[in-house]
Amino acid sequence: MGRTLERVGDTWSLMILRDALQGLTRFDQFEKSLGVAPNILTRRLSALVEDGFLERRPYQQRPVRHEYVPTDLARDFAPVMTALMAFGNRHYAVEGAATQIVEAASGRVVEPVMVDRDTGLSIDDPRFTVAAGPAAGEATRARLAQVAARRPEGELP
Amino acid sequence: MGRTLERVGDTWSLMILRDALQGLTRFDQFEKSLGVAPNILTRRLSALVEDGFLERRPYQQRPVRHEYVPTDLARDFAPVMTALMAFGNRHYAVEGAATQIVEAASGRVVEPVMVDRDTGLSIDDPRFTVAAGPAAGEATRARLAQVAARRPEGELP
Repeated sequence: MGRTLERVGDTWSLMILRDALQGLTRFDQFEKSLGVAPNILTRRLSALVEDGFLERRPYQQRPVRHEYVPTDLARDFAPVMTALMAFGNRHYAVEGAATQIVEAASGRVVEPVMVDRDTGLSIDDPRFTVAAGPAAGEATRARLAQVAARRPEGELP
Repeated sequence: MGRTLERVGDTWSLMILRDALQGLTRFDQFEKSLGVAPNILTRRLSALVEDGFLERRPYQQRPVRHEYVPTDLARDFAPVMTALMAFGNRHYAVEGAATQIVEAASGRVVEPVMVDRDTGLSIDDPRFTVAAGPAAGEATRARLAQVAARRPEGELP
């Protein structure tokens, strides 16, 4: 998680990535959508390109202009965005949601939940737990040992 | 999403929240786990308390010492953490995962996926789309109109 947050762990990067996944591609579109200062936007877009979340490619010659298109890596990040959007809608959208996921045909509002791919059980089912992986260092193992000792059932991750 | 990120949209807050959800409660535990400077940790913990993610309560008298316990709001944020962890494990854990979700009884590694609560369909199924909610402003509607025009099927949110 630390390595992910090193790359996208700031508000602007996450907002740019959200907009990119929702179809914005051009500098002025991000600038207008987010109200972000141009120098910050330039820096964040470059970082997202460098980290493989956006592909920079020309959409016009003379003068050359570039657009920023989400990569497969960015698309694989969509569940994080969906979880953030759902959380925000549950807790901070006092006047109703600004954006939400719907079933296109019916307009039904979809409630996204996290489940185990194999069984379909909710990920906060008490039979699941967070555990040290093969690359866990000593600090991680010590932290997780405390989890095992203290965590009430169903509290994840 | 913006309102959520105003509160927890920085790396330290997210890392503290992850540790808190995994069972750490004390200042020195967070400090050791994250290698974060004490002044930053103090500020971030206060902000998380103020925003309702952590409850600060005494666990010892003479001298009084406090611990930080995740609230229901923080627990409801767990899917964001789970999605971040899964993404990191898929892309940056070249040497294997440090932490992962497992089925406690069998040790089977769980792959968390985001689905529609009602139908169980993957949230990136092309029949779902992101749409303006009741409180969408003009900027959001304009942005989402572009999504509808440009988004390939199945790209979310």
